[in-house]
Amino acid sequence: MRSIIIASTSTIHGSGYLEYLLDELKLHFKDTDEILFIPYARPGGISHDDYAKTAAKAFNSIGKSVKGLHEFDNPKSAIENAKGIFTGGGNTFVLVNQLYKNDVLGAIKNAINNGTPYLGTSAGSNICGLTVNTTNDMPIVYPPSFKTLGFVPFNINPHYLDPIPDSTHMGETRETRIKEFHAFNTQPVIGLREGSWIEVKGTELTLKGNLDARIFEYNKAPYELPTGADLGFLK
Amino acid sequence: MRSIIIASTSTIHGSGYLEYLLDELKLHFKDTDEILFIPYARPGGISHDDYAKTAAKAFNSIGKSVKGLHEFDNPKSAIENAKGIFTGGGNTFVLVNQLYKNDVLGAIKNAINNGTPYLGTSAGSNICGLTVNTTNDMPIVYPPSFKTLGFVPFNINPHYLDPIPDSTHMGETRETRIKEFHAFNTQPVIGLREGSWIEVKGTELTLKGNLDARIFEYNKAPYELPTGADLGFLK
Repeated sequence: MRSIIIASTSTIHGSGYLEYLLDELKLHFKDTDEILFIPYARPGGISHDDYAKTAAKAFNSIGKSVKGLHEFDNPKSAIENAKGIFTGGGNTFVLVNQLYKNDVLGAIKNAINNGTPYLGTSAGSNICGLTVNTTNDMPIVYPPSFKTLGFVPFNINPHYLDPIPDSTHMGETRETRIKEFHAFNTQPVIGLREGSWIEVKGTELTLKGNLDARIFEYNKAPYELPTGADLGFLK
Repeated sequence: MRSIIIASTSTIHGSGYLEYLLDELKLHFKDTDEILFIPYARPGGISHDDYAKTAAKAFNSIGKSVKGLHEFDNPKSAIENAKGIFTGGGNTFVLVNQLYKNDVLGAIKNAINNGTPYLGTSAGSNICGLTVNTTNDMPIVYPPSFKTLGFVPFNINPHYLDPIPDSTHMGETRETRIKEFHAFNTQPVIGLREGSWIEVKGTELTLKGNLDARIFEYNKAPYELPTGADLGFLK
């Protein structure tokens, strides 16, 4: 049975890396002591090694060790053999580019569809949607495609940000950007606020965390969904 | 002689479309009464026709008419015959995709290098740099390449935004994003605040408007340049 956590962010304001999710992660990864970490998104361009250390520190605190996918000679077999996978945030374009370069998207898809528990945060959540057309990141590299894992039949917008009242900046709001996405695409988009996540259990999709999420459907006014909502209708 | 205005934005807060630039544009386009408008960036997904009307309204106020590139059967020859070209803002990915689709990048490059005056705002300015890897826009379509016109030997970041003090949002600041760009690319980036523009006259590049610009060079701390600065050193 698929078991996936698609989180808006790794870190909420005033709290440590993954801290707000640790109780959840104890349960989510209860059947393994070792997590395979995909460090490809490299926030701020840090090295795979340094990034894996950050992830390890958080997982060590719940008694689990972390091994970075970059440490393996054969990343495909590392994914096949993993008992739990975490893809961290950073730059979505850098992440997707590296996933294609190492040709591991198929292996991740198979592993997760066969029941390997998965955690994604930010960029690692973006890739759980149909495409990364709704990332907030700067396109600092050109990946071979924007198509991704499609664990959910819609797109994710992590770190969803409400319009800032009285802003004098003329750049587009997040809502404007997602509306623009729907001028060229039809799949729904879920705006996940920091602290929210989607829980996937088999075919059941549920909104979790303390906050509401903002839903954008093609040709429809955007609206709010409360936490706990069943997201199965969204396709 | 090349004559190019690369503006951060079409509109500054509390002012009409292109209003802050109109005196400049009277001079810039003094040798023509008709502007060829490239509406491909389609802000908010509006139609090419509607977008051309917005541009026409502003240019009519200084006695010039506007024709949209989409109105021509042969866009290449329309560009070759133009006496002045304006590319408006919107979504950079949509703009670049359409420029490649209609195979007009070469024609624009030739025309501008041969002296046709050009104005770009926002997305229309992004394409004047080497690549669009430093756009702020959402990647709502997948263009065939991120390479663009290279009228200046660096990248543009329009609508440059300083960090918001006391923000609790965990998304990256603009400065963090551009630093991340330099983990994978070496060309300089100019952060153009709203109200700033780059004036290109032949081989001379000058920062214009009332504001300083923020400069990001590979392996160097970011720094400010005052308006009026010669940008010729930046490559």
